[in-house]
Amino acid sequence: MTDTAALVASLLERVQVLEDKAAIQEVLSAYGPAVDAGDADAVGELWAEDAVYDIDIRVMEGRDAITEMVRTRPHQDYINEGCGHLLDPVHIRVDGDTAVATCHSLLLRRNLDADSFRVWRVTANRFELARIDGSWKIKRRTARLLDGSDAARELLARASR
Amino acid sequence: MTDTAALVASLLERVQVLEDKAAIQEVLSAYGPAVDAGDADAVGELWAEDAVYDIDIRVMEGRDAITEMVRTRPHQDYINEGCGHLLDPVHIRVDGDTAVATCHSLLLRRNLDADSFRVWRVTANRFELARIDGSWKIKRRTARLLDGSDAARELLARASR
Amino acid sequence: MTDTAALVASLLERVQVLEDKAAIQEVLSAYGPAVDAGDADAVGELWAEDAVYDIDIRVMEGRDAITEMVRTRPHQDYINEGCGHLLDPVHIRVDGDTAVATCHSLLLRRNLDADSFRVWRVTANRFELARIDGSWKIKRRTARLLDGSDAARELLARASR
Repeated sequence: MTDTAALVASLLERVQVLEDKAAIQEVLSAYGPAVDAGDADAVGELWAEDAVYDIDIRVMEGRDAITEMVRTRPHQDYINEGCGHLLDPVHIRVDGDTAVATCHSLLLRRNLDADSFRVWRVTANRFELARIDGSWKIKRRTARLLDGSDAARELLARASR
Repeated sequence: MTDTAALVASLLERVQVLEDKAAIQEVLSAYGPAVDAGDADAVGELWAEDAVYDIDIRVMEGRDAITEMVRTRPHQDYINEGCGHLLDPVHIRVDGDTAVATCHSLLLRRNLDADSFRVWRVTANRFELARIDGSWKIKRRTARLLDGSDAARELLARASR
Repeated sequence: MTDTAALVASLLERVQVLEDKAAIQEVLSAYGPAVDAGDADAVGELWAEDAVYDIDIRVMEGRDAITEMVRTRPHQDYINEGCGHLLDPVHIRVDGDTAVATCHSLLLRRNLDADSFRVWRVTANRFELARIDGSWKIKRRTARLLDGSDAARELLARASR
């Protein structure tokens, strides 16, 4: 192999990693808009078929359970009253066909008696993703309220591992 | 064309897409700092000359109308009392020389009678951008308060389209 | 040099810039999780040995002073009561082996008497980073509360400079 061919081979690998991070960024930044639109199908497409969404008070198993959550109460009540599901910049570690993404999430809800919103939940999030048939999908999301408990702290401490 | 030359040609296209996303990210992440600094010229440079900024209560047409908004009240009052215009991670779709970016925005204002801020507005945003003379500029920003109305939901639902 | 070799040389430079931005993104998105986990060592690794963290009310000089802040009160009280340190999307300018990153930060604290959080601080941030032994580290972080003062506005106005 010539020097140029070797450089091109290494560039291909480096560009693939950058594209993987951009693709994961695209999946995670699509979540908030889809869930606040109440678009259950768009939310569902972001998850693997056998995905698990583990929050403080319940565990949803499978894509259908997750889209059902979007379609029903209390989620629909939040939307109808006015809400925003936001993330902050995501820490992403890619390892071949899997990745871990760590960030905070905010659930903001409109105050019905005032011209403002309240910060209802501030949550620690760990997303485990996999490349499935060429597309990155969420395999597991673990979310723990930042209420001083060890669970949220331990989840955040695993960001770089 | 040799195999190596063909690989380089495909790499050039892939790197261009990544650079476009990074450039759009740079435009959108420059907005909040510029607007909270009250730097109307820096805000203006982010928009196309004929840009439109369509918010719930008014439509600003042209870059001059947008920079005028930054220079005048109530925007200057918000700055002087203490405010922050924040985005969350932006969902970006590039299509050649145009792009669509979708995200939430927050307008936080300092409470004058307490050591804290209030979440005054949580808003759905759609930015339509274009490459103009080699630089990405905002052509149109549509922003709708997340107050449970259809307008905000429909805007968010268009993120991937 | 052949045409292909010249293209590869230019691609190497362009990919390096994209990787630098991704690496800086990784450093800054690691900060919130580490500091809310109370993981002082993980926080420390993000800073240069001789880093300076300049906030409104004090200046911390050196990595040890910064990790000491994480280990002690009042930071530990915030964690135990429930808090989140969030950023919004970061504006990054890379110039060889140094970079400037500008963004807002939020400090959200749980209300002990209500099922919600309050926005305690909204802050303007300027991170000055350097490539040290091949890794990007924070050399200086300057943070100013967005309370209407000139200091925060001037810091934000320097984002693109």
